Amino acid sequence: MKHSYVIDLLEGTQLLQEVTAKGWVRAFRNNQFIALNDGSTINNIQCVLELDAFAEEIIRKISVGAAIAVKGTLIESQGKGQKFEIHVKELEVLGESNPEEYPIQPKKHSLEFLRENAHLRVRTNAFGAIMRVRSTLSFAVHKYFQENGFFYVNTPIITGSDAEGAGEMFQVTSLEVGNPPRDENGNIDYSEDFFGKETNLTVSGQLEAETYAMALGKVYTFGPTFRAENSNTTRHLAEFWMIEPEVAFNTLDDNMDLAEDFIKSVVGYVMENCKDDIDFLEKRLIEEEKSKPQNQRSEMTLTEKLRFVVENNFKRVSYTEAIDILKSSKPNRNKKFNYIIEDWGADLQSEHERYLVEKHFKCPVILFDYPADIKAFYMRLNEDGKTVRAMDILFPGIGEIVGGSQREERYNVLVEKMKALNIPEEEMWWYLDTRKFGTAVHSGFGLGFERMVLFVTGMSNIRDVIPYPRTPKNAEF
Amino acid sequence: MKHSYVIDLLEGTQLLQEVTAKGWVRAFRNNQFIALNDGSTINNIQCVLELDAFAEEIIRKISVGAAIAVKGTLIESQGKGQKFEIHVKELEVLGESNPEEYPIQPKKHSLEFLRENAHLRVRTNAFGAIMRVRSTLSFAVHKYFQENGFFYVNTPIITGSDAEGAGEMFQVTSLEVGNPPRDENGNIDYSEDFFGKETNLTVSGQLEAETYAMALGKVYTFGPTFRAENSNTTRHLAEFWMIEPEVAFNTLDDNMDLAEDFIKSVVGYVMENCKDDIDFLEKRLIEEEKSKPQNQRSEMTLTEKLRFVVENNFKRVSYTEAIDILKSSKPNRNKKFNYIIEDWGADLQSEHERYLVEKHFKCPVILFDYPADIKAFYMRLNEDGKTVRAMDILFPGIGEIVGGSQREERYNVLVEKMKALNIPEEEMWWYLDTRKFGTAVHSGFGLGFERMVLFVTGMSNIRDVIPYPRTPKNAEF
Repeated sequence: MKHSYVIDLLEGTQLLQEVTAKGWVRAFRNNQFIALNDGSTINNIQCVLELDAFAEEIIRKISVGAAIAVKGTLIESQGKGQKFEIHVKELEVLGESNPEEYPIQPKKHSLEFLRENAHLRVRTNAFGAIMRVRSTLSFAVHKYFQENGFFYVNTPIITGSDAEGAGEMFQVTSLEVGNPPRDENGNIDYSEDFFGKETNLTVSGQLEAETYAMALGKVYTFGPTFRAENSNTTRHLAEFWMIEPEVAFNTLDDNMDLAEDFIKSVVGYVMENCKDDIDFLEKRLIEEEKSKPQNQRSEMTLTEKLRFVVENNFKRVSYTEAIDILKSSKPNRNKKFNYIIEDWGADLQSEHERYLVEKHFKCPVILFDYPADIKAFYMRLNEDGKTVRAMDILFPGIGEIVGGSQREERYNVLVEKMKALNIPEEEMWWYLDTRKFGTAVHSGFGLGFERMVLFVTGMSNIRDVIPYPRTPKNAEF
Repeated sequence: MKHSYVIDLLEGTQLLQEVTAKGWVRAFRNNQFIALNDGSTINNIQCVLELDAFAEEIIRKISVGAAIAVKGTLIESQGKGQKFEIHVKELEVLGESNPEEYPIQPKKHSLEFLRENAHLRVRTNAFGAIMRVRSTLSFAVHKYFQENGFFYVNTPIITGSDAEGAGEMFQVTSLEVGNPPRDENGNIDYSEDFFGKETNLTVSGQLEAETYAMALGKVYTFGPTFRAENSNTTRHLAEFWMIEPEVAFNTLDDNMDLAEDFIKSVVGYVMENCKDDIDFLEKRLIEEEKSKPQNQRSEMTLTEKLRFVVENNFKRVSYTEAIDILKSSKPNRNKKFNYIIEDWGADLQSEHERYLVEKHFKCPVILFDYPADIKAFYMRLNEDGKTVRAMDILFPGIGEIVGGSQREERYNVLVEKMKALNIPEEEMWWYLDTRKFGTAVHSGFGLGFERMVLFVTGMSNIRDVIPYPRTPKNAEF
């Protein structure tokens, strides 16, 4: 007999029927009540054993973490906390779980302990919820783009180009690291490497996505990207998933519209489709914040925060306006910022972004038209000759969640910019071709997927929203 | 005014309205008829210029590959080949395309030439179609799993474990190749590497996916995987995308059911949603095969092949049966195989697989219960003690498209197997934990996404179904 999933059993449509359930024991009380979870939902189904109906030997093996199969009748529950339960007739212990050894006990474990047991943490309520939300959010991303006429493009992970300059790269090689072949001048002979040249892990699929946008019109990537940066923070990973839409004929304004609509849509989708998980994470967050001083607690619950994003316009502010606001802000005047804002042209630090978003505007903010000098070479120069059509979206508690721009579509301007920055033209011939043949205005952005998962789950450390985080000195599992 | 997409204009709902279209010129004849494509569909919209209505200077710039914007009235076409066309009132050339330099001319280019221009090939009908089909197929994958209660898991790309043994791995490092730090014994000091140990690019997410299946029940991965193997064939890539579902409580039979249902579902989805692209690819294939001798041409058209897969049961055959069939087959008796099948236990070569699928059964075949010796350590040993619960799905023209198994869920059996193969237990502690705590029967498989795209598009070289292929000595773009 095929077994039923807990999520379906809890719907009650099989009431009074004989059902089979398989899953893992989350709790067992009074030698009678098993809370069974199979991962299909955060909710357990209660499996009720008649007293003395099962041998002591079986009962002894029913412990937290054990895998079991039960057969019985689905009935309405007399107890509190659940509408339906299984009146168990047969029970088989599939895999035991020695309570002396099993690390995941029904008590509160620290997030740090759970990170060290990342292969088991997903068996807890919190991480089950986080990973289901992550999965649903991924699907919402694909659904949004596909239903809006975008095509998914798998840009290369291993790349011979390092021109994007988004960050430090990992090298990929099949050479013997301590003893590579050398040419007559003693230099490493990369013609002997697997790809016949030096290769790295991609930091962004944008440049390749642009070539596809100039043919298919609207495209997006959604894949892993890498940074070999020694950033041991709660917001950085060495390996993370990025979403990068790129749209032909879109201006920066269109780009902002797209980013805002996209974020609202996917957050809305998760709110609708992960209600139980979000509810749990909301309660978890409230509990967690109880240990914080009043003034550091969120003013809104998780659901309120999500609803706020879905229902309110993001505030659009030019870099120049933002500098004016920051210059005359209290923390700037009182020298409370670590970096005091004095002149136009300053690169904004996380403290400034947080001030703008969390104190001044109290809503998601889109900053645009940044100084050219602090932004990437491919961004469209404005007519003022000193700013570029860049945008960053800043989120409360998260900081930068999106970075994007209208791209420089003019061949000559782009070449000049590359020359000024010593970006080798000959390596970028294919990128320049997009400006040579049928060039057009186009725009796109990158969104760090894990930062969005952080926001939606209310978690505060990015290592807790990806199954097996990669960070400096850590590639376990 | 927002512009309209060609796919929408061709629906005709904006008939007699003023519309704007933006895209790239595919053809321009008689200084009057522009075939405009914007990537939203394989079909062009015809844009009709009134003779002498536009300056010579504008007309001169309208060449193949140029980006243009047109404004005009959508009218019913009097000409053949299209129902609707735009009667153009305004035309702007956004980006020219010098016909002397633009590589993609309206003529037949070789696939090899197009590979060298992978950044532009997607502007052709064939590659536009392939990449739209690829995108739709990706979405079908996510849709199938999400609608069937699976959760998407992003397993790590950079891995410290190399136990899976699926193939040669690329090393990932932030050390200076050629001059890494060394310990007192002269060995490379990997504690100085980014992750504090030697790391590689993943060959499979299976082991990590198993840990998630033992908590969430039904999971799948869909991400890039890597092989540092010097295989210069039409079926191998160094970087390719793999789909790996893993399901708790599934037996090998359930696994076969899942794989078959999954493939039928996603192929059916593409047939329904990419009709125009598949039609084009079908005609392309017929043209291509005209240059082949009659006996090498397909017996079925592309659509017939796809429909055949969707509508017929895959043939399920045990390895032992397959060996019997092969042993008594004509090419084996006549010594036409390069590897003659003599005894049970032989590893099947591609020539044998092709014989079974293309000559003997003439349909997709699922081979199962392979000899333990030729399969991976994690596969469930059968009661006979010599075969494992493995399965491979073989497709006509493609060969192996799926490899999967029921996993060895018994801790002691698994440990013994690992010992015999010198797989270090201490590195695999987390994998073994899944067998220690709440173990259960579970199964899964891996499907090479590009091989499925090959099948669905009727293309014959795997380099033509991924945007920027990575192969030995090639990581251009």
